[in-house]
Amino acid sequence: MPEQIRLSLFEMAAPVHLSHGMWTHPRDQRHRIHTVEFWTELGQILEEGTFDLLFLADVLGTYDVFTDGLSTAVKEAFQVPTEDPLIVLGALASATRDLGLAATFSTTYEPPFTFARRLSTLDHLSNGRVAWNIVTSYLANAARNFGLTDQVEHDLRYEIADEYLTVLYRLWQDSWRDDAVVVDRAARVYTDPAKVDYINHVGDHFSVAGPHLSAPSPQRTPVLFQAGSSIRGREFAARHAEVVFVGGGTKEKVRSNIADIRARAVEAGRDPAHLAFLAIAKVIVGRTEQEAWDKANAYDSYRTPREALEQPRRTPELSRYAPTHLIADIIAAKDFGYEMLIRNFEPGQTVADVLALQSRSRGGEFTVVGSPVQVADALERWTTETGVDGFNIKQDVSFDSVRDFVDLVVPVLRDRGLLRDRYTPGETLRERLFGAGQRQPHETHPALAEQLARTAAAVR
Amino acid sequence: MPEQIRLSLFEMAAPVHLSHGMWTHPRDQRHRIHTVEFWTELGQILEEGTFDLLFLADVLGTYDVFTDGLSTAVKEAFQVPTEDPLIVLGALASATRDLGLAATFSTTYEPPFTFARRLSTLDHLSNGRVAWNIVTSYLANAARNFGLTDQVEHDLRYEIADEYLTVLYRLWQDSWRDDAVVVDRAARVYTDPAKVDYINHVGDHFSVAGPHLSAPSPQRTPVLFQAGSSIRGREFAARHAEVVFVGGGTKEKVRSNIADIRARAVEAGRDPAHLAFLAIAKVIVGRTEQEAWDKANAYDSYRTPREALEQPRRTPELSRYAPTHLIADIIAAKDFGYEMLIRNFEPGQTVADVLALQSRSRGGEFTVVGSPVQVADALERWTTETGVDGFNIKQDVSFDSVRDFVDLVVPVLRDRGLLRDRYTPGETLRERLFGAGQRQPHETHPALAEQLARTAAAVR
Repeated sequence: MPEQIRLSLFEMAAPVHLSHGMWTHPRDQRHRIHTVEFWTELGQILEEGTFDLLFLADVLGTYDVFTDGLSTAVKEAFQVPTEDPLIVLGALASATRDLGLAATFSTTYEPPFTFARRLSTLDHLSNGRVAWNIVTSYLANAARNFGLTDQVEHDLRYEIADEYLTVLYRLWQDSWRDDAVVVDRAARVYTDPAKVDYINHVGDHFSVAGPHLSAPSPQRTPVLFQAGSSIRGREFAARHAEVVFVGGGTKEKVRSNIADIRARAVEAGRDPAHLAFLAIAKVIVGRTEQEAWDKANAYDSYRTPREALEQPRRTPELSRYAPTHLIADIIAAKDFGYEMLIRNFEPGQTVADVLALQSRSRGGEFTVVGSPVQVADALERWTTETGVDGFNIKQDVSFDSVRDFVDLVVPVLRDRGLLRDRYTPGETLRERLFGAGQRQPHETHPALAEQLARTAAAVR
Repeated sequence: MPEQIRLSLFEMAAPVHLSHGMWTHPRDQRHRIHTVEFWTELGQILEEGTFDLLFLADVLGTYDVFTDGLSTAVKEAFQVPTEDPLIVLGALASATRDLGLAATFSTTYEPPFTFARRLSTLDHLSNGRVAWNIVTSYLANAARNFGLTDQVEHDLRYEIADEYLTVLYRLWQDSWRDDAVVVDRAARVYTDPAKVDYINHVGDHFSVAGPHLSAPSPQRTPVLFQAGSSIRGREFAARHAEVVFVGGGTKEKVRSNIADIRARAVEAGRDPAHLAFLAIAKVIVGRTEQEAWDKANAYDSYRTPREALEQPRRTPELSRYAPTHLIADIIAAKDFGYEMLIRNFEPGQTVADVLALQSRSRGGEFTVVGSPVQVADALERWTTETGVDGFNIKQDVSFDSVRDFVDLVVPVLRDRGLLRDRYTPGETLRERLFGAGQRQPHETHPALAEQLARTAAAVR
């Protein structure tokens, strides 16, 4: 049997995530993102197509470093308004049955103790279908929504994130033993007190006593996603991520990125087979190649023109500066059109460094336009030639883009044995991604490795 | 038409909220609180009985000041394990259609900015059915889960809560104008930038820039619940609460409590008609009085014996001390069986003060055992004689207690015109409680009054 292609739908509870202007298409439904019916309908389409998961991006502020402040983002609905993705996943936990449910959450602004319980509850209610995309936030406005005057510095954010994860692992994996809850009505013991304990974490950034409030959920630790592209971000992904979003230009570059992160994972003591990689892909499919191109051209007429939008990764903006100009200085001067560009910048990075990064990453988010067979060929070729395990599919028009994918591409992938016909009942998301029985992270993952080390130390 | 009786079900996403030991009853389903099916089934029963709402209590720590630390609470499942109530309400937003959805959330430990969006999202997804019970937390262990060594002092907690509410009102009511979102595809304007603004709150405890991330939801501000019984708590309720949980002993005492809070509301500039009061009630109903008493006696055989449980409001524990002994000293010495007793203590309060408070409040949570007509009579009499608007119903056995109530009591209440036959489609929870058209808080409520004052100032 060939390796299955993993399918994630890449969305956000906002009228626009990355599909600038597509909400103006008469069939686009994203103006309904605040309704439960929107999510129920989307969930049904994805389960019909046996997608692995729905993945919701998130931000905690508004893009306001444009020359006109909030206006561009607000008018274009660019990631505003947004709804809380964890609450949306709560609604989807009851509205779907098999679909994996992933959301972005930042380790920078909210305490780990309550976040741990929110994800445990989601994992319980969904019967083990939850994933978390770990981010550290990057918007200047987000910092100002949480009492700070500016962003926490990049490397410090990752240092905080590392400790945040340590706290979460202890709450999720250590605080309750697997067999703690007994519900023994005759003996009048609901939970065995000998099997629940404090975690008593005291660190540089957090002090958390525990015990965790929620009993062990099917996966305990949700499947961990990460997309860091900076050096620090890659190190973090190699240590913590089970699913990594990869960008980075040519197929060769994607292949070398994957090799790099797997090598770093080995250095961190992990089994590199327990990391999966997804590439962002946009698919425009028609019954024929001509129909697909007609659709692509029609869609283009709805897109926000680049000149009206201060576009992510807009090169001319940066090209005004000398190549040796420091990005940090541009940020400090707020003399910058678009902050997304610089979210992963490293201290000391220059304009030339970022321009090089842009030209690399543009090709990483690949677009396929064609007939069902052409699209399936392209997806298959991309997985074979780069080693990605699957795709995080972006829609132009919701739900038309994913409807087309499910109606036209999914049958071809199934015919080729690249996609399941149905879900395996009761399977957790981690089992679906990494094999039956793998309900919790692999034993070499720090969530378990640290626990095993502590247990061994206690036995000695 | 007689005044309708308001019905709330008082539960918690835990095997035990207040029904100590009842999880040992063979028909009790609360060991399933971590499953979506439990909540879907409960929601269906409540909608069949046209309950106004389901209300979920919450805590952010474990009761661990017993002589044996965590053991009593863990073994008895006393409010542990617990699931996150906001995530459970997310699941219920899609699993129910008309039921009001209320949850407790503390203003002490988590930032207001993200909480504001969570409730806006819940209000959107549920189409305006969300309520929030404002608490400031009281467990010592909760403080230690958020980096503190001990609880924030009582009055300071309320001071923080006041500012927390101010931030939320500005996010919910001010940041977006009603007509901000236009979704004008032809003009390519999703939201009118002139109608969305920062809040730029800078206070003693919070700095929050805004704008709010979610567009205006049906109720904007969720219906606000509060149950403060200390003087500071009553002042807070009079200022902010739309629905107040009242305890406090005899009918006469409940009546005077209500009068006191209404009077304080008037002092705070509010229309006292826009406050509703709910009393906690436990109902054991049978087809006959005999059947009800048989059931009550059978239930009692499952309850945790008082001597096995270090019981809330356990008098002997306190009676070991001299009446003039300061409660603060007992807490400091951790020489205390049960912390719930002291959650609302005031600085300077003595053992005698607390004992007096206990004897007053015990009767406030009234229990009715009887036939359907006897129960309906008792509920009707309580509303008439105390002025409460309805009840927060506790279950002994879930779902049997509420199933009995819906099957046996609800038809009698409907026959008497005290309860609706069906929900009014599209009605928000606030409209259901305070009348058609009242989608947002009353204009004299600070959520709006402050906004109106600011607008007037801006116009001048």
